[in-house]
Amino acid sequence: MGPETQGFLLNCWYVAAWDHELIDGKLLARTLLDKPVVLYRGDSGRVVALDSRCCHRGAKLSNGRREGDDIRCMYHGLKFDPSGKCIQIPGQDNIPKGLGVRSYPVHERDHLIWIWMGNPAAADPAKILDFPYLRDPAWRGKPGYMHYNANYLLIVDNLSDFAHLAFVHTRTLGGSEEYAYKSKPTAIERLEDGFRVERWHMAADAPPFHRKAVRNAGKVDRRNIARMYVPGIFFMETLFSPAGSGAGKGSLEGAKQYRNCQFFTPETKRSTHFFWDYLHDYALDDPTIALSLHDSMVEGFMEDKFIIEGQQEMLDADPDFKMHGIVADAPLAHFRRTLAKMIAAEKTPSIVEEAAHA
Amino acid sequence: MGPETQGFLLNCWYVAAWDHELIDGKLLARTLLDKPVVLYRGDSGRVVALDSRCCHRGAKLSNGRREGDDIRCMYHGLKFDPSGKCIQIPGQDNIPKGLGVRSYPVHERDHLIWIWMGNPAAADPAKILDFPYLRDPAWRGKPGYMHYNANYLLIVDNLSDFAHLAFVHTRTLGGSEEYAYKSKPTAIERLEDGFRVERWHMAADAPPFHRKAVRNAGKVDRRNIARMYVPGIFFMETLFSPAGSGAGKGSLEGAKQYRNCQFFTPETKRSTHFFWDYLHDYALDDPTIALSLHDSMVEGFMEDKFIIEGQQEMLDADPDFKMHGIVADAPLAHFRRTLAKMIAAEKTPSIVEEAAHA
Amino acid sequence: MGPETQGFLLNCWYVAAWDHELIDGKLLARTLLDKPVVLYRGDSGRVVALDSRCCHRGAKLSNGRREGDDIRCMYHGLKFDPSGKCIQIPGQDNIPKGLGVRSYPVHERDHLIWIWMGNPAAADPAKILDFPYLRDPAWRGKPGYMHYNANYLLIVDNLSDFAHLAFVHTRTLGGSEEYAYKSKPTAIERLEDGFRVERWHMAADAPPFHRKAVRNAGKVDRRNIARMYVPGIFFMETLFSPAGSGAGKGSLEGAKQYRNCQFFTPETKRSTHFFWDYLHDYALDDPTIALSLHDSMVEGFMEDKFIIEGQQEMLDADPDFKMHGIVADAPLAHFRRTLAKMIAAEKTPSIVEEAAHA
Repeated sequence: MGPETQGFLLNCWYVAAWDHELIDGKLLARTLLDKPVVLYRGDSGRVVALDSRCCHRGAKLSNGRREGDDIRCMYHGLKFDPSGKCIQIPGQDNIPKGLGVRSYPVHERDHLIWIWMGNPAAADPAKILDFPYLRDPAWRGKPGYMHYNANYLLIVDNLSDFAHLAFVHTRTLGGSEEYAYKSKPTAIERLEDGFRVERWHMAADAPPFHRKAVRNAGKVDRRNIARMYVPGIFFMETLFSPAGSGAGKGSLEGAKQYRNCQFFTPETKRSTHFFWDYLHDYALDDPTIALSLHDSMVEGFMEDKFIIEGQQEMLDADPDFKMHGIVADAPLAHFRRTLAKMIAAEKTPSIVEEAAHA
Repeated sequence: MGPETQGFLLNCWYVAAWDHELIDGKLLARTLLDKPVVLYRGDSGRVVALDSRCCHRGAKLSNGRREGDDIRCMYHGLKFDPSGKCIQIPGQDNIPKGLGVRSYPVHERDHLIWIWMGNPAAADPAKILDFPYLRDPAWRGKPGYMHYNANYLLIVDNLSDFAHLAFVHTRTLGGSEEYAYKSKPTAIERLEDGFRVERWHMAADAPPFHRKAVRNAGKVDRRNIARMYVPGIFFMETLFSPAGSGAGKGSLEGAKQYRNCQFFTPETKRSTHFFWDYLHDYALDDPTIALSLHDSMVEGFMEDKFIIEGQQEMLDADPDFKMHGIVADAPLAHFRRTLAKMIAAEKTPSIVEEAAHA
Repeated sequence: MGPETQGFLLNCWYVAAWDHELIDGKLLARTLLDKPVVLYRGDSGRVVALDSRCCHRGAKLSNGRREGDDIRCMYHGLKFDPSGKCIQIPGQDNIPKGLGVRSYPVHERDHLIWIWMGNPAAADPAKILDFPYLRDPAWRGKPGYMHYNANYLLIVDNLSDFAHLAFVHTRTLGGSEEYAYKSKPTAIERLEDGFRVERWHMAADAPPFHRKAVRNAGKVDRRNIARMYVPGIFFMETLFSPAGSGAGKGSLEGAKQYRNCQFFTPETKRSTHFFWDYLHDYALDDPTIALSLHDSMVEGFMEDKFIIEGQQEMLDADPDFKMHGIVADAPLAHFRRTLAKMIAAEKTPSIVEEAAHA
């Protein structure tokens, strides 16, 4: 049984939203890991995440009204504080002890709102993966969001194999089918919580997204270092150096670099929230670069979406379909095994107890 | 197990249609309690309700043709009389005994078409709840219909608690959130087949729907007497008296009254037909009053629909969600218990047998 | 258990497409018997049908790229030959033995692409039913396609009883309700793999589709000879002779004839591909006749589609609904029994083994 059918990893941080999605104190309704959640920033500035079902009759709290840091269900008027505790029932003086909705730990960092859907006692912000480029003025980007009608692991799979760049993204992110044949991962490193892949492609035409941002890019030595972490977080460092300038030996002369972060959060077993930013380190005073890269990425991601949503349809249509591995699947196979083990461990009673007493 | 998952009460009258829905002999296709029914008024004036599936191959009788009081399936031409008996098979002289479709007892009263989906032998029109205002020239209204994508009991729940007027209908039917805090039911009377609630709100601003119909309404003493009956029939008597005119002590001086009937008929377990009329007792020669009230009600009901259909989505998404009662739930809890008992009793073999031999 | 719930007959030829659907080497994605299939004509001219799921990760081959007679998955670039064998994995030198996708036998004849979904060893083109009029210059038609949201057997049923012409197609293909009462099948012949029905209607008004093609058709003697074959293939020979000209005794003086072929291929258990051609033997140099007849048929088939899709909805809504036979059902009852027996035989292990060793 793989993670696809096993359920979700609960005790980890997921990205729930970009901070700009919570401006003006608006209520954001978002299903995360099959749970309806309402997110908002209270008057005090803190971000609140609550189960979006009123504990009374299940009406949507996201149809309710924010009052300061609290939220009121606009069906019968029950009011909840940021901890989820019911603090008012109109027409009733006594509020039963323990009445309320579930509150989820949230943590805001570098424009991302992270949420912890597992045991709240274990929700340590120190466990959030750091992507310093989002706060570093030497890098510029533009936050992106897309929705996939596919299980998040199919998207993780997709990112685990650069070969797809050649075929899915020939005319956008990849650049040529040659990339699939002539470049090979120089190292696949198995990590405890994911994997790291490095791939070089020497003296190649730069891919279209780079040529759109950089005129006369010419032949380049291209290096991608990608890391994928549980539960579905992808960081990539991309380097384009003038061909033969010695990038393979460590020279950064004339190099242009990108930093790419992608966060996949399951909405349901068949749909995914995808948050991303693609940052660049050159021409920082030119705002059109980030816009051009953003548009190129959207174009490329739409190509992935088309393939992956088609794949999901195929898998849905016949649950007995058996996949067959190829050599390039090594990273994704390792990732799925790692994740499956973590989910299984989480379900072991002793672990759960430990967490509960942590 | 509550009535929501228990199935429907069969041996009772449900509203199937307003009489004007059957003008010109048209065939009305309507699913009632999960059964496809075709309704029509025959040339003789009688109303007929039949299982809308031709007994031959299941084609829709509602796609057929009315012939006098009979109906013909327009697939292979089988013809049925109002009792559902097959009376013609084109190209075949002998009609098998007993061939036909199920016929449902119907009864027309005060513009409403009632249907009995249970044991026909028990279908006594005397059991139909009377709402005399629909035939009383001292009252004027306009029949309404709406469709809900929600279980009918969620709508019954909604009507069982006036507190929702304050939050759902602040700017339409309720008038102010104060209504939730300052008014309290003066009496909740448990009935054998439902409940009765009375609620006063003294010296208040009249709600918007009343102010639209009556200019300069001023401060009013407001009284609502609501009765809810199994399986989902709601009658309400509303009184607005000038504040301090003694309505609490029985004076009707300067009072303006409303009579409201609402009939909820399950279409499926997840959808409901809603028939209603909101009648007034003043300015009967002014047709715009009924129109204004009708529009105000639609506006208010759309607010309910929004909340309740959202609630249904939440319940569908997680059948394990547990509701928590508050004090104001007493009427709906009594109603659900009452209905659940009646449905359970109906399923007891001895009762079924009795009915079969009645 | 009838064929409707029994599954599909596998060891027989189904129409998969008209040849013109494969022009320009395009990839045609078509679900057949619940299986996703990709069809294309290779550069060599041969037609290929493959399971449309890449054996690697299930991406859609129909989103791939044809290369000569081969096809490449455009996710990670795996390439397959017409036998379904994987012949290239970019970035991987060694291809595991046996890696590939399922290939289906196909056969092209008279503009039709036939497919065999069962045991390939038994796929003998000699078993394809011959309809010579499609290649005979004495007949002219225009190929048609329609999609039904209904089980294919409901459409076969429909064609098994001419009585439906009178009621469903009064104003298009039938001509009058009289047809149902005054004409009777003169012979229903049970065949090993279907049935044959002959029906005469003497001195009648020609039906509208004939009157549109032939001005001043006058009163006609009308003869329909229909044959229906397993799994869902319908041939009909239609003759219109001037009334009293002796058609009943074999005279063809002044006769105008039609040849009609209809092929029903299950897409899923609830949907059907319908391929058809309605050919005429007169005024062959006038292209508007075939167009007029094509349009008349579409008009008539839309009437069937309306009735049959409604019937499917009814059956879906209540799987316990029981159909009741009438005399006119004899052909369809025979057909369903025949088909059910063939499907059951196919599932018997000994038969399967035999086929496997054939």
